Amino acid sequence: MGERDRRLRERAARVIPGGLWGHMNVDGFSPDYPQFFERAEGCTLWDVDGARYIDFMCSWGPVVLGHKHPAVEAAVDRQRALGDAMNGPAPALVDLAELLVETIPFADWALFQKNGSDATTACVTIARAGTKRRKILAARGSYHGAVPWCSPSLAGVTAEDRAHLILFDYNDIESLETAVKAADGDLAGIILTAFKHDYGADQFMIDPAFLARARQLCDAQDAALILDDVRAGFRLDLRGSWAPVGVQPDLAAFSKAIANGYPLAAVVGSDRFRAPASFGKVFVTGSFWYGAVSMAAAVATIETLRDDGVIAHTAAMGQRLRDGLAGLAGKHGLGLRQTGPTQMPMVLFDDDPKFARGNAFCNAALKAGAYFHPRHNMFLSAAHTPALIDRALEAAEVGMAAAAQVSAREMAAS
Amino acid sequence: MGERDRRLRERAARVIPGGLWGHMNVDGFSPDYPQFFERAEGCTLWDVDGARYIDFMCSWGPVVLGHKHPAVEAAVDRQRALGDAMNGPAPALVDLAELLVETIPFADWALFQKNGSDATTACVTIARAGTKRRKILAARGSYHGAVPWCSPSLAGVTAEDRAHLILFDYNDIESLETAVKAADGDLAGIILTAFKHDYGADQFMIDPAFLARARQLCDAQDAALILDDVRAGFRLDLRGSWAPVGVQPDLAAFSKAIANGYPLAAVVGSDRFRAPASFGKVFVTGSFWYGAVSMAAAVATIETLRDDGVIAHTAAMGQRLRDGLAGLAGKHGLGLRQTGPTQMPMVLFDDDPKFARGNAFCNAALKAGAYFHPRHNMFLSAAHTPALIDRALEAAEVGMAAAAQVSAREMAAS
Repeated sequence: MGERDRRLRERAARVIPGGLWGHMNVDGFSPDYPQFFERAEGCTLWDVDGARYIDFMCSWGPVVLGHKHPAVEAAVDRQRALGDAMNGPAPALVDLAELLVETIPFADWALFQKNGSDATTACVTIARAGTKRRKILAARGSYHGAVPWCSPSLAGVTAEDRAHLILFDYNDIESLETAVKAADGDLAGIILTAFKHDYGADQFMIDPAFLARARQLCDAQDAALILDDVRAGFRLDLRGSWAPVGVQPDLAAFSKAIANGYPLAAVVGSDRFRAPASFGKVFVTGSFWYGAVSMAAAVATIETLRDDGVIAHTAAMGQRLRDGLAGLAGKHGLGLRQTGPTQMPMVLFDDDPKFARGNAFCNAALKAGAYFHPRHNMFLSAAHTPALIDRALEAAEVGMAAAAQVSAREMAAS
Repeated sequence: MGERDRRLRERAARVIPGGLWGHMNVDGFSPDYPQFFERAEGCTLWDVDGARYIDFMCSWGPVVLGHKHPAVEAAVDRQRALGDAMNGPAPALVDLAELLVETIPFADWALFQKNGSDATTACVTIARAGTKRRKILAARGSYHGAVPWCSPSLAGVTAEDRAHLILFDYNDIESLETAVKAADGDLAGIILTAFKHDYGADQFMIDPAFLARARQLCDAQDAALILDDVRAGFRLDLRGSWAPVGVQPDLAAFSKAIANGYPLAAVVGSDRFRAPASFGKVFVTGSFWYGAVSMAAAVATIETLRDDGVIAHTAAMGQRLRDGLAGLAGKHGLGLRQTGPTQMPMVLFDDDPKFARGNAFCNAALKAGAYFHPRHNMFLSAAHTPALIDRALEAAEVGMAAAAQVSAREMAAS
């Protein structure tokens, strides 16, 4: 740990419970990971002690074009020179809503928020208001946000917060059917992440037959099929992550990559749910939800994603990384599982339940200049180039050598 | 309605349910209020048709120093040149947490979010985790956010979302005691806004005896007294809005004015609730909650509020407005009630239950260049000068003349 990082952590420990809240706390992470950052450009990060990293977390998803992308920054400069938080929205709101409706086939309308949790919670509330029913079906282990109805921690959560939540197993039709039966005519909606991307687990895509069955079950009861595209949205398919499967949700939640790091979330929906989402029905709002700068950033981000073919580029760069890592693992005789879409890689070592080998790999790679994550899916961006991937693979080779030093006994014990 | 505003509303009606969500929808508002804004400087707004207004809403609270305050914008420029959404926080996080702990006597720690609702919900969750009890007591009519446990709309809200919410009447000790009894040993906390600032109602300050009793009741059961300072925070007293009363809450939620319009919220608390708020217990997080730009803006905002004596200035400017409006109302023979802190004015006409006179006043004043609100409390900022208040009073005089034209019959019927 660098000296400045260490001092900042000491100060933070006094004035922030546990040093830092939430997913960016690096406690229990590989030991040399910096907690505090100084600077970011493209896909390069500098920590507060001046160490530089080729980054594969992209702020845990938001940064899809790379930090300080010129088109986004120019749009931000233009809007900021006019105004951001005014007494009503700027024209950028309408431009953005139209762009989403134009881009996403099932979207007839859009609403904007600030957090992914705002968007998933609004989807649930709109589904309940539109169906006048209560049960929400969600997949075991899926992350839909950090509010009481769906938080991964039960501290401070009451049983009633989840009284109308019924769990099923992702991609398991029978389990979903059982959950629908348990809803007993009170089904408001089924919420599903774009694909299964749980913390510390292999990723897998949604089974088209399962998704089609979810659509049928919702149709049979006029309930809402909700796509939680907060993490994957604008990274797999600009039309929404299920477009290649050909199944259309009724409601979808987006956030993270929508504005290249500027704080924004969106709910889009079909006309079936326009009335309950309307002013005077479900009341969803926030002091900063009309801020024009993030909306201008989103328009520029989505247009750049579309015009520059960014998704294909990030998929290719992710493939280059995946191929390289597979080669290095083979060379060191290490069993590696690389799952999910290449542009959102999950890299886990075989027989490594407590991530001892993963931590060793990441920590050594970090010191050699690549910022990987041992347990969470990672993210590529438009700023990743073949040359940068290759440099990151040089760091990964150092990581693989360190990983190979972790014995089976250490992996079982850690 | 201006032509450009009209065209934007038509486009918005197609792609946004009801034209706009939440509190900034001007439906049912005075008819000539613009929905869309082009530009903001200080306390002046321009709508999309070029009309200019001296503003008294300050984006419904966030803008406390005036739009584009140079100290805040300079801090934002500096941080933005470094980085915003990185893989962890920037040093600005620690600076800001320390500044809050230094400024707010009861605060031993701070956590940051994006919405006021994030902060009030986190307070409730931390109170429940820390007490291992469930009941939250809240005052009838108080606004604590737009999420299911507290939203003013019941559309899409289930009974279970409020199963552990018990209501009482603000400033009514007996009612509060009855609610505590109803909690029956399961009291997690009592949440109160800084003062009573309900939509469309006269404002009133908290009764020190009532607040002291709330403190006693919490102490007797080791429950959390929660200050919802989202709207009033950094406007009445930098130490938290109850500092002049001398009663200290355990937890407090801030947002709105904390960063002069940049999106941010904060929870601060005493050491009593540090453990449940810590990483590994209550899980509260969001993709953009570590963004450095809003934190740098908050540091600059709070330092400017402190060093420039902004609260005294806004209170004086609010008093100048209040005196002027009282004089104008008297001149026109109109009964006017101006309540609450002068820097957060609520202006209501007597015998005007449906705001017919208030709407007439506001609409005419708007056309004469002052943006008032007929039903919601308003906000002063550092950018309001005596000369601007006096110009706004000229517009208000036009408004009073129009208000005087509204008959008692119209007021009863509208």
